[in-house]
Amino acid sequence: MLYFIFVEIIAMKIGILGGGQLGRMLLQAAANYTVTTYVLENDAECPAAHLCHQFVLGDIKNFEDVYSFGKQLDALTIEIESVNVEALEQLEKEGVRVIPSASAIKTIQNKILQKNLYAEAGIPSAPYVITKSKSDLQHHLNFLPAAHKLAVGGYDGKGVQILNEEKDIELAFDAPSVLEKKIHIKQEIAILVATNEAGKTAIYPPAEMIFDQVLNLLDYQISPAQLEEKVLWKAEAIALKVAKALNSPGLFAIEMFVDNKGEVFVNETAPRVHNSGHHTIEANYCSQYDMLWRILLQLPLGNTAPILPSAMVNLVGSEGFTGAAFYNGLDKVLEMQQSFVHLYGKLTTKPGRKMGHVTILSSNYQDLTHQAHKIKQLIRVESNQ
Amino acid sequence: MLYFIFVEIIAMKIGILGGGQLGRMLLQAAANYTVTTYVLENDAECPAAHLCHQFVLGDIKNFEDVYSFGKQLDALTIEIESVNVEALEQLEKEGVRVIPSASAIKTIQNKILQKNLYAEAGIPSAPYVITKSKSDLQHHLNFLPAAHKLAVGGYDGKGVQILNEEKDIELAFDAPSVLEKKIHIKQEIAILVATNEAGKTAIYPPAEMIFDQVLNLLDYQISPAQLEEKVLWKAEAIALKVAKALNSPGLFAIEMFVDNKGEVFVNETAPRVHNSGHHTIEANYCSQYDMLWRILLQLPLGNTAPILPSAMVNLVGSEGFTGAAFYNGLDKVLEMQQSFVHLYGKLTTKPGRKMGHVTILSSNYQDLTHQAHKIKQLIRVESNQ
Repeated sequence: MLYFIFVEIIAMKIGILGGGQLGRMLLQAAANYTVTTYVLENDAECPAAHLCHQFVLGDIKNFEDVYSFGKQLDALTIEIESVNVEALEQLEKEGVRVIPSASAIKTIQNKILQKNLYAEAGIPSAPYVITKSKSDLQHHLNFLPAAHKLAVGGYDGKGVQILNEEKDIELAFDAPSVLEKKIHIKQEIAILVATNEAGKTAIYPPAEMIFDQVLNLLDYQISPAQLEEKVLWKAEAIALKVAKALNSPGLFAIEMFVDNKGEVFVNETAPRVHNSGHHTIEANYCSQYDMLWRILLQLPLGNTAPILPSAMVNLVGSEGFTGAAFYNGLDKVLEMQQSFVHLYGKLTTKPGRKMGHVTILSSNYQDLTHQAHKIKQLIRVESNQ
Repeated sequence: MLYFIFVEIIAMKIGILGGGQLGRMLLQAAANYTVTTYVLENDAECPAAHLCHQFVLGDIKNFEDVYSFGKQLDALTIEIESVNVEALEQLEKEGVRVIPSASAIKTIQNKILQKNLYAEAGIPSAPYVITKSKSDLQHHLNFLPAAHKLAVGGYDGKGVQILNEEKDIELAFDAPSVLEKKIHIKQEIAILVATNEAGKTAIYPPAEMIFDQVLNLLDYQISPAQLEEKVLWKAEAIALKVAKALNSPGLFAIEMFVDNKGEVFVNETAPRVHNSGHHTIEANYCSQYDMLWRILLQLPLGNTAPILPSAMVNLVGSEGFTGAAFYNGLDKVLEMQQSFVHLYGKLTTKPGRKMGHVTILSSNYQDLTHQAHKIKQLIRVESNQ
C-alpha cells in the first residue's frame, strides 16, 4: 500500500512597507507569480493600494503598525527606507523573513552609520567628518567646499545643503550630520546588485544619471552607462563590495560618482528597488522588480543583461502647478515609436512630485539622448487649478 | 479680473467582464495609466480579483449583474466573450462605451452569425453549411470530412467535433451548429488588429501556432511567423477586413489557416485580448494589453513592431493531476537566460487548465524553437494530491 504525503501548496504571504510607485511596480511584477501580497501605507488612495490582496492602513514608522502587519506574513520587504526598524528586528526574532534585513535598513537610514560602514569596509566614498550641531562646523572650515547631509530624514535632495564657503555655514543643519568633502564629479552612475538568502549575487549594468540642477531630481538616465573599461570594473567591484558589507539579502541600488581622474566614490545606497532601475522593466531580461520577487519567493536570480540600451525620463510635477494632475503632451509621447509610458496613478500633482516615467529603447545612444530630450520638451505635468 | 474654469480631472472608470488570466494581464498593464478599474466575476479568488480598484462578485452571463456593474462605468470591455449581450446593448443605449461593441460580441458568440459575416463580407473561410440538429447531418454527407462546431458555447477546443466519415455522425452535435469542410492546413496563424473609436487601426505581425493534438490547446507559438511574402500580405489584408466587417472599436485576434497552396482562411475571431498575443508583453513595443487600454482611455494607438522575435509556451495542467498546483521544474525555466515566466496565480490545477505561460526572446528562430521545446520538457504543472 502506498502512502502519499499531502503537502498543501499555499501561496507565500509577502508584505511591502510603503505603497508608492515602487510598490505599485513591484505589485505589477508580483502578478507573474503565485503570491499573496500585502501593503502597509497610511493613504488608502496610494499608488499601490488597489494592486495587492490585502491593503492595511497604517504608519510604516510606527512600531505597532509594522509589527502587527508583519507578524501575519512569511516575508516582508520595503519600498522606502524610512520604516520602523525596531519592529522589523522583533519580527526577525520571531521568524519572519525581512528582506533587506533590519540591520541593513538601520545602517542605511543613518548617513553616519552608512559612511562609517564604507570606511570600515574600505569602500571609497568622499572624505567626511561627523557634525553634531551647527556650531561644530566652525571646526571644519578647511573641509569646505562640502555637502552637509542630515544623518536621518533626507530624501530626494531634501536634507542636503551645499556649503561652499564660511558664510554658508548659516545654512548648515543643527542636528547630527555628515560633512562630505566636495568631489569633482564627472559622471554620476548607479548599479543595482541583487543578493539572495543563499548568498548568490547578480549585478546589473550601470545606469548614468543626469540631474536637474534646480530640483535635484533625476532628469534622465542612460543605461548601460558608457564608461571606460577600467571605470566599469572599479564601479562593479565597489557595488559588489557594498552589497557584501551590508550582509543582507535584497536588491540594492548603489549610487556612485566618477571624478575627472576616473576614480569612483560611493554616494549612497538604497536597500530596495530604485528610481535608477525603472528602465529594467522593458530594457533588461529580468527587471529589478522581478528580481526582488525571485529573492522573496526563494526562486533563482534572473538575468541582468540588457535586451537593448535605454533612456529613462522621470515625469515630475511642473513648477507652478498644484492640484488635479493633467499630463500636457501625453498623446505626443505615446505616439513615439519606442517609448513606454508609466503613470503612477497619483491624482494630484505638485512641483517636483514624481508622477510617472518614460522609458525609451534604442540600440543607438545618440538616438536615446535625442528622444530623452524630446520627451522632456513634449510633456508637462500640470493641473487645471 | 480673470476667471478660471475648474475642470476636475477624475480617473476614467473602466470595467472588465471576466477575471481570468487575460483580465489579470490587462490589470498589470492598466497600472501604467491613471484609471479606476472594476472587475465582474463569480469567483472572488479569480486571477484578476485583487488587481482592480473594485471587484464585484457576479455572473457575467446574467443581465442584472452585468447591467448594474456597467451602469456605474465610463467604459466596459471583456476578457471572455460569453457575456450577457442584452445588458451590454442596454448600457450602450444609456451612453456607456462598450468596447468591443455589443453587436460585435453577439456576432462572434454565435458561430453561425460569425460564418455568415465572413461570407457576406467576402472574407475567405472554410466552406460551411448550417445544421440545426444531428439528423440534419444526413443531408450533408458529401461535405465530410468536416469539423462540426456548436454555434454557441464552444471554447478552447470544446464544442468542436471532427467528422471524417458517415459513422462519425453519431458524434455530431444535436443543436444549431456549423459544419465546416476540412481544409488541408499547412500553417495556423493569428493576427491581432486594434481599432479605436476614431476608426484608426494598428496590426501586429502574425504569430504561428502549433497545437497539442491531444488537448487541442496551444502547444507553443512563434512570432513573427515565417510566411511567404504573398501569404503575409493576404493574411494581413484578411485580418483587417475582419476587423472592418465587425465595425467596432477594440482589440481583435483573427485566427487563420494557411493551406498547401498558400491560400488563407479565417478560422475564428476573438473580440478581445487573446492567448496568441501573450508574447507582446515583452516582445513588442506596445503589448496587446497596453493597446486595449489605449483604446479604452482614448489615447493614441501604440507601436505593434517586435523588439525581438519570440516564442511562447502555455503552461497547462498535466494529465493525471488535480488539486493544489505545483510547478515541477519552475526553477530550471527561471534560470533560462531569455525566458519570461507568467503564472496566473491559480491555486489548483486540473488536466489542460491554463496555469501560466513562458515567453522567450531571441533573434534566432532555431534558438526559439529549441528553447520552446526545452521548456516543454523542463516544466510540468502537477499537484501533490
